[in-house]
Amino acid sequence: MPAINAFYAQSGGVTAVINASACGLIQTVRRHPERIATVYAGRNGIIGALTEDLIDTSRESDEDIAALRHTPAAAFGSCRYKLKGLDKNRAEYERLIEVCKAHDIGYFFYNGGGDSQDTSNKIAQMAAAVGYPLACIGIPKTVDNDLPITDACPGFGSVAKYVAVSVREAAFDVASMAKTSTKVFILEVMGRHAGWIAAAGGLAQERSTDPPHIILFPEIPFDEPGFLARVKHVVDTEGYCVIVVSEGLKNAAGQFLSEAGTRDAFGHAQLGGVAPVIAGLVKTGLGYKYHWAVADYLQRAARHIASKTDVEQAYALGRAAVECALAGKNAVLPIIVRKSDDPYVWEVGEARLEEVANVEKKIPREYIAEDGYGITDDCRRYLRPLIQGEDYPPYENGLPCYVRLRNVPVPKKLTADYKLP
Amino acid sequence: MPAINAFYAQSGGVTAVINASACGLIQTVRRHPERIATVYAGRNGIIGALTEDLIDTSRESDEDIAALRHTPAAAFGSCRYKLKGLDKNRAEYERLIEVCKAHDIGYFFYNGGGDSQDTSNKIAQMAAAVGYPLACIGIPKTVDNDLPITDACPGFGSVAKYVAVSVREAAFDVASMAKTSTKVFILEVMGRHAGWIAAAGGLAQERSTDPPHIILFPEIPFDEPGFLARVKHVVDTEGYCVIVVSEGLKNAAGQFLSEAGTRDAFGHAQLGGVAPVIAGLVKTGLGYKYHWAVADYLQRAARHIASKTDVEQAYALGRAAVECALAGKNAVLPIIVRKSDDPYVWEVGEARLEEVANVEKKIPREYIAEDGYGITDDCRRYLRPLIQGEDYPPYENGLPCYVRLRNVPVPKKLTADYKLP
Repeated sequence: MPAINAFYAQSGGVTAVINASACGLIQTVRRHPERIATVYAGRNGIIGALTEDLIDTSRESDEDIAALRHTPAAAFGSCRYKLKGLDKNRAEYERLIEVCKAHDIGYFFYNGGGDSQDTSNKIAQMAAAVGYPLACIGIPKTVDNDLPITDACPGFGSVAKYVAVSVREAAFDVASMAKTSTKVFILEVMGRHAGWIAAAGGLAQERSTDPPHIILFPEIPFDEPGFLARVKHVVDTEGYCVIVVSEGLKNAAGQFLSEAGTRDAFGHAQLGGVAPVIAGLVKTGLGYKYHWAVADYLQRAARHIASKTDVEQAYALGRAAVECALAGKNAVLPIIVRKSDDPYVWEVGEARLEEVANVEKKIPREYIAEDGYGITDDCRRYLRPLIQGEDYPPYENGLPCYVRLRNVPVPKKLTADYKLP
Repeated sequence: MPAINAFYAQSGGVTAVINASACGLIQTVRRHPERIATVYAGRNGIIGALTEDLIDTSRESDEDIAALRHTPAAAFGSCRYKLKGLDKNRAEYERLIEVCKAHDIGYFFYNGGGDSQDTSNKIAQMAAAVGYPLACIGIPKTVDNDLPITDACPGFGSVAKYVAVSVREAAFDVASMAKTSTKVFILEVMGRHAGWIAAAGGLAQERSTDPPHIILFPEIPFDEPGFLARVKHVVDTEGYCVIVVSEGLKNAAGQFLSEAGTRDAFGHAQLGGVAPVIAGLVKTGLGYKYHWAVADYLQRAARHIASKTDVEQAYALGRAAVECALAGKNAVLPIIVRKSDDPYVWEVGEARLEEVANVEKKIPREYIAEDGYGITDDCRRYLRPLIQGEDYPPYENGLPCYVRLRNVPVPKKLTADYKLP
């Protein structure tokens, strides 16, 4: 059997470790030249496949591919572009198969979240329907940690570590000066529908009275009087109050507290700025001096403080995706299986794409304290292993050395241009 | 001569390395028990001296004092409390001398910025006026880097490193996804009157076309049409635009943009936060998808990514302050003197308190690019050494181990309570 090519794309919001998955995948492919000739990466994700804008990863040096392991964001570009259903836009799937055929691609690796795994699954179905031999393998990725089945999603452990470290540091700052200055500090973190990232702020606590004193989850409807009473109680007893708020915080009517009115390509509301809204309530209701921070992209790009566990899992899943493909599997994705909490023991398992496609794993209620403002010991037991270990990038001139790939295009073979709908 | 005691206080906004100065100071004192018996720290800064709320640092273990070197914020508490002039509130200065007398304090160490060094200087004058032998020694500190004479202010190098690293990381993120998602990213950084921290964002560049593409300095009045034209040009040529904005950005009328009655992109009146104001202008004027981040306290507390150079300078100045005192000096502060840029060679020098009191060092115009949107090579040459080297704190359970001191109070000796004015 002659070697065939593989396609690889990065999808959706990027993370500090998605390139570590790319590194695991490409390095593994390079050890099996008799089976897989070249990995073609989609420039800007799946759009690259649709428009036949492919990157020849064989043109990158071994050193640069190795450096992907410590480089944040998406080295080949990513996009927010959700393919419609097979019934709604069959032409897109046909186009993908056409591009695969033209470039002798027999493996389709898609590195993304629940939406992307749904896409992978549909591509697998389409390929089967038209009789084109294509192994579709997913690789999980999402800072939101909202995929089911897998113990964790690569990207989450690092953002969790960033948030826990930042909360601990900012809390030391606020505590130092609360006597005469800021009494209430609010950190806004990501998490559109699931509060996993906000929950990770709770790891900053050593003792139950430590900051953060209040976590506001998207899973718990915001109760303004209850919240303000809690802030006052904390300031009265501790002298200051540190709050972590999820961007996805909603009121009892189910509306986001901060809503920009615009929507992204997946139809998700485009958020930003719930921290100043909470600050306004504290100011109006209690009059305390406040400060607020919005970490935004800083949190998910923060490779400098990545979790070693997260990096290792991201790499392992990239490698495992290739191993799945070489074992003749299709429509599956490698996942993390937890064998024990402490010490944390994990191994790579496998799930079917259809099991994770479009399923959003929210925080179970038993992970959130009864009053809704903190995390439970069960939650801590789950989260703590995911932030273990440091994995510092190399530095030069005081700054981390992140690789920029050459990203050499693969000559096009199809004559028809493809217009994105 | 029997050993006498020393007073030490931390003043104003805290930093990632002010405790490293405390560490240098206390460790040096502990090596000279024949000259200085005990360091009494002011609880919450100078307020602790005024209210006779002193902390007995001799009750802290050597291990805990050593851990101050890697612990952010102010271990003894800090405050924003500026003593009035000698003519306006002589009673405050008399009270300070009274507390020093009561506790046999012969050395007064004040770790702070320009305001604090003004206070130190006045205390020195007052002590001389009443004939009380008190050596007043300053220790520079400020993330704003706005003290004159010293090559850099401890605290600045670390916030500069945080900002440069964060800009580089967020820029990788934005670049990855700009094709279909966020085109403009705005990071707001500290610096109410001086743009040193914003300038440090410019260190993220390797090549002139690298992000950040635009830096908005407090020293350069904001020109909205010019700014929007520049953003459009950058997006047209680079595909995306990364902006660093100083919280102290002002319009041509000299008003802070964050307070100029503007509303953010969501129509909320602003509660501090120039980043959402800039985002709103980009949205209204150009229609690009944007994201913004406000680092706030995260930047000045970020000990996890401290500059090794900064930590070493902070420690050295704490040690040097004691050496100045033991050499019989008064009304001086140790400073950093640069001997060469590359390799960066520095040594500890000395300045008189009156030279640094209340003088604000803004960025020289020749450090800002002619168009006002970037930094020059001269600025880079000055800034680059200050972020060199990493000095990671120890970690446990995935989080940095920062010390919490016991902070045992010194029994009061004065009968009169003191009410702060």
